[in-house]
Amino acid sequence: MTIHEPLTPKVTTGPLPGSSKLYLPGQIHPDLRVAMRQIALSAMAGEPPLTVYDPSGPYTEPAALIDIAKGLPPQRAQWQIARGDVAPYAPRPVQPADNGFATGERLAPVFPTTRPPLKAQPGRTTTQLAYARAGIITPEMEYVAIRENMARTAAAPRDGHDFGASIPDLVTPEFVRDEIARGRAVIPANINHPELEPMIIGRNFLVKINANIGNSALTSGMEEEVEKMVWAIRWGADTVMDLSTGRNIHNIRDWILRNAPVPIGTVPLYQALEKVGGVAEALTWEVFRDTLIEQAEQGVDYFTIHAGVRLRYVPLTANRVTGIVSRGGSIMAKWCLHHHRESFLYERFDDICDIMRAYDVTFSLGDGLRPGSIADANDAAQFAELETLGELTQIAWAKDCQVMIEGPGHVAMHKIKANMDKQLATCGEAPFYTLGPLTTDIAPGYDHITSAIGAAMIGWFGTAMLCYVTPKEHLGLPDRNDVKTGVITYKIAAHAADLAKGHPGAQARDDALSRARFDFRWEDQFNLGLDPDTARAFHDETLPKEAHKLAHFCSMCGPKFCSMKISHDIRAEAQKEGMEAMAAKYRDGGALYMPRDAAE
Amino acid sequence: MTIHEPLTPKVTTGPLPGSSKLYLPGQIHPDLRVAMRQIALSAMAGEPPLTVYDPSGPYTEPAALIDIAKGLPPQRAQWQIARGDVAPYAPRPVQPADNGFATGERLAPVFPTTRPPLKAQPGRTTTQLAYARAGIITPEMEYVAIRENMARTAAAPRDGHDFGASIPDLVTPEFVRDEIARGRAVIPANINHPELEPMIIGRNFLVKINANIGNSALTSGMEEEVEKMVWAIRWGADTVMDLSTGRNIHNIRDWILRNAPVPIGTVPLYQALEKVGGVAEALTWEVFRDTLIEQAEQGVDYFTIHAGVRLRYVPLTANRVTGIVSRGGSIMAKWCLHHHRESFLYERFDDICDIMRAYDVTFSLGDGLRPGSIADANDAAQFAELETLGELTQIAWAKDCQVMIEGPGHVAMHKIKANMDKQLATCGEAPFYTLGPLTTDIAPGYDHITSAIGAAMIGWFGTAMLCYVTPKEHLGLPDRNDVKTGVITYKIAAHAADLAKGHPGAQARDDALSRARFDFRWEDQFNLGLDPDTARAFHDETLPKEAHKLAHFCSMCGPKFCSMKISHDIRAEAQKEGMEAMAAKYRDGGALYMPRDAAE
Repeated sequence: MTIHEPLTPKVTTGPLPGSSKLYLPGQIHPDLRVAMRQIALSAMAGEPPLTVYDPSGPYTEPAALIDIAKGLPPQRAQWQIARGDVAPYAPRPVQPADNGFATGERLAPVFPTTRPPLKAQPGRTTTQLAYARAGIITPEMEYVAIRENMARTAAAPRDGHDFGASIPDLVTPEFVRDEIARGRAVIPANINHPELEPMIIGRNFLVKINANIGNSALTSGMEEEVEKMVWAIRWGADTVMDLSTGRNIHNIRDWILRNAPVPIGTVPLYQALEKVGGVAEALTWEVFRDTLIEQAEQGVDYFTIHAGVRLRYVPLTANRVTGIVSRGGSIMAKWCLHHHRESFLYERFDDICDIMRAYDVTFSLGDGLRPGSIADANDAAQFAELETLGELTQIAWAKDCQVMIEGPGHVAMHKIKANMDKQLATCGEAPFYTLGPLTTDIAPGYDHITSAIGAAMIGWFGTAMLCYVTPKEHLGLPDRNDVKTGVITYKIAAHAADLAKGHPGAQARDDALSRARFDFRWEDQFNLGLDPDTARAFHDETLPKEAHKLAHFCSMCGPKFCSMKISHDIRAEAQKEGMEAMAAKYRDGGALYMPRDAAE
Repeated sequence: MTIHEPLTPKVTTGPLPGSSKLYLPGQIHPDLRVAMRQIALSAMAGEPPLTVYDPSGPYTEPAALIDIAKGLPPQRAQWQIARGDVAPYAPRPVQPADNGFATGERLAPVFPTTRPPLKAQPGRTTTQLAYARAGIITPEMEYVAIRENMARTAAAPRDGHDFGASIPDLVTPEFVRDEIARGRAVIPANINHPELEPMIIGRNFLVKINANIGNSALTSGMEEEVEKMVWAIRWGADTVMDLSTGRNIHNIRDWILRNAPVPIGTVPLYQALEKVGGVAEALTWEVFRDTLIEQAEQGVDYFTIHAGVRLRYVPLTANRVTGIVSRGGSIMAKWCLHHHRESFLYERFDDICDIMRAYDVTFSLGDGLRPGSIADANDAAQFAELETLGELTQIAWAKDCQVMIEGPGHVAMHKIKANMDKQLATCGEAPFYTLGPLTTDIAPGYDHITSAIGAAMIGWFGTAMLCYVTPKEHLGLPDRNDVKTGVITYKIAAHAADLAKGHPGAQARDDALSRARFDFRWEDQFNLGLDPDTARAFHDETLPKEAHKLAHFCSMCGPKFCSMKISHDIRAEAQKEGMEAMAAKYRDGGALYMPRDAAE
């Protein structure tokens, strides 16, 4: 992996070890180039290359010319125009407040090239949900159908327990269209984000993960954030949320979006609050509406909207151990109390839907009252809000808006399934998008692990996307290493969930890695792992020589004790005399208890 | 924490941050000093100190004089003599083979002081199981009863789902006796390990964790291993297994045992194999028997015995993806095939029981055929062996021997519960002791996490002890950092399981930490965590100043956005006008939709 720098900022490029890109065309839309990653395995061992899901974009394509100041190629631009439902127009002018009034040296550079934003023409809708309901299979739909199959062309052996999900043997474009039409899946794809490689979020597809990045008033700048995004998707993040709350968030967001092959989500409320100087009660519908349009024009793919925080629910949090821990939730709660009225998010939800649909920005209905501690899990405030999110889902669907629902939080293991069951029942099977949940509060510094336990379980139960938690949760903002640790940890949780759900083909990677392990193909074992660099480094700490990459043992037991080596002897013997004969001989007691000589 | 060095080897001593030792006396046995850890919390906040379970021994006691060459005080010595069932005798002489024929510089120093070993007198038994069946409450039983309550004297609020466990509100000595008599719990406590602070392993007690240490032919020496043990228990390991396979394992084991306040487990087969030059088929009952006695005299508290690997099961592994991955299992399988007969572990199981009972060494019946990959989980070989372990459990119980059962391995989430259910049904509720299980094979370098997911779940389902997995699993031997990471990760899994089982008092630590978090008591938050040092270091990366330890915000959101700060305002307002009034006002719809002015 090399640091590529034609222009600032620096970003990480180059293929993962042993990997190359594979691009598959569409059939309905032949011009599609659906990106996947192929891991080359030992030909001597007769192992074909393994194809895996790949959100890393052009950054892992050696042939790609990465120029951050130009952005990624806008492959979706033609798709939008072809549909004829959208038209370009003069954008809202950027204002000083958009960047927190940063000026001079403190102002992050403006992204060099601009494009007039697109918007649905009067009387037209351009959401994937509207097209799906109209029976149209968009390029986005065919793209994700091909992508989900990871180059499989036949049904794979099924295993697992899916809790009533409907996972097909092979994903077809028609299946994608139907799932979106039913509201059970979303493709977050703002028409102003043409650099996007479409992906789908739904219970009947591979479990996805989100990585949060973003600067705060205290830390980080634009270069760091763009590299964090590139770094996060390199290790497997399917979407990235920009949670910036400091200065320059408009300009930084432009740089991120123009270089992002994955959906970008935001919490517009954060920027709106910046625009009113951080005073919650000073927020107005006009400021919020202006922010929605600003971000929709930039191409943000999904918005977290905390419209479920109703005035009457706020007192339900007053006796909690940790009160309200959602930033958006607490801001709106404070606003509601101060003004003694329902929030503009709730009162103006119709108007919000009209903006979302014009750009196909997907709703991520925020759980502003999620529990922040084991003690507060599954309480009245949390579930009251969930009921309201269910009502808002129906309103959004009626307006052809795509919707997913955010979930907790901190929840002990025995209370996790109730969250999934209640969400499915309350929100009409709209995709669930959860943070963890953390299964205990007692391990600050290790909450990527306390939450991976809960994330794997709720993913198994049906959650469609898992928002990562890094080791810095509760303590600080994640740095580059924390982002990688968080992403790898959540890839583990998501994959464990896919295995347990019985997602066809999910086990292929486990089996390939285990065969490599059993055959002592160390290079294959490293390259099939989620983090080949770390696996290799750990192995080399004790057995650094290249020769050891061929050694039929590892440092854990040493040569004499290697159980796998002995297993090979057993298998050889079994094959020599024939498994069946061997088994039969040992089954009948007669052969037992004979001394060795007599047996020969 | 300071590095204390009166004599080599160096070990880590000193209290954990904010912590002091608490010793509680017995009532039946007044001389008991049951060790616990008290975490001091902010008195200003009216928080009493929190008492937590503490396996760290005298190393965290400032007043303790740690001299590794003398070993820990033999507090249990009097208990054994008092019973009058045991007598000292002249030990088996140490032979060159015991240390892998190491000589001169390569020979690790002999532990300076020796004690004649104790052994049950003819016709007497000295196992905790025998005493429990006789209605006797031993000091060990009362010790663990007091220890499990963590200074609680009243029933705590119950929550959770226990899958049919029988967890009491408060643990009494009589409850402990009864659980041991029923075989549902064990106290691994060799009569020749008087330095031990007794602990109990059973489904109706707190979930315990084991840390593996040990040198291999390729790495590590005595100093490292003793410090690894001290380091592992500092962070919470309840037992430690010495899996050494290289030279000097007799001498190193002496140093570990004389300085270990926790039960030490071994796999005697490893040393026996060393004695016959590493040639599996050269193993004999005589060599194995000699090794059992050698280690029993040293004071090893539990032995892994792979007596369930029967000749007829071996062919069942021949078509596995990863064959046999247990070292002991593969060694015995090879022996069985070579000699075409059942293993001496199986044929001589009666004789093994007679040795175990004479010293009260607890059986850990090894799962030699556990799956080493997702593909091999829950297969015929694994469950056939489990049936045999169930039969052997009955034989051992008939001989008054304590028994626990080892379990997998690699198991996808949807197949984990079947393992627990089958073990409970097959092995008469003998305590289950599992390795992970790992829930996916695709993350070498992160298998502490892939396995923590499975460990937390199987602990919830009823597993009594979880054997840790470190980040180096499959790649190398754990170093100091890996041991700590593995232990903390498994403390998380065990505690998440205790919470989900509804263990009374388990949530007290979560609640105390969450209150500290909500009150911005950073020092309390750090000190209540499993790893105060890391939590503090992470916090200080962005907010290093001591003043920030009092700041009512953290670096994640910065001052303006702090949701907890806003929650405090909400709580203040609620308290001002009265929760009920406030709630009532918002409940009736009349107050809604009124403009701010009108509302004032």
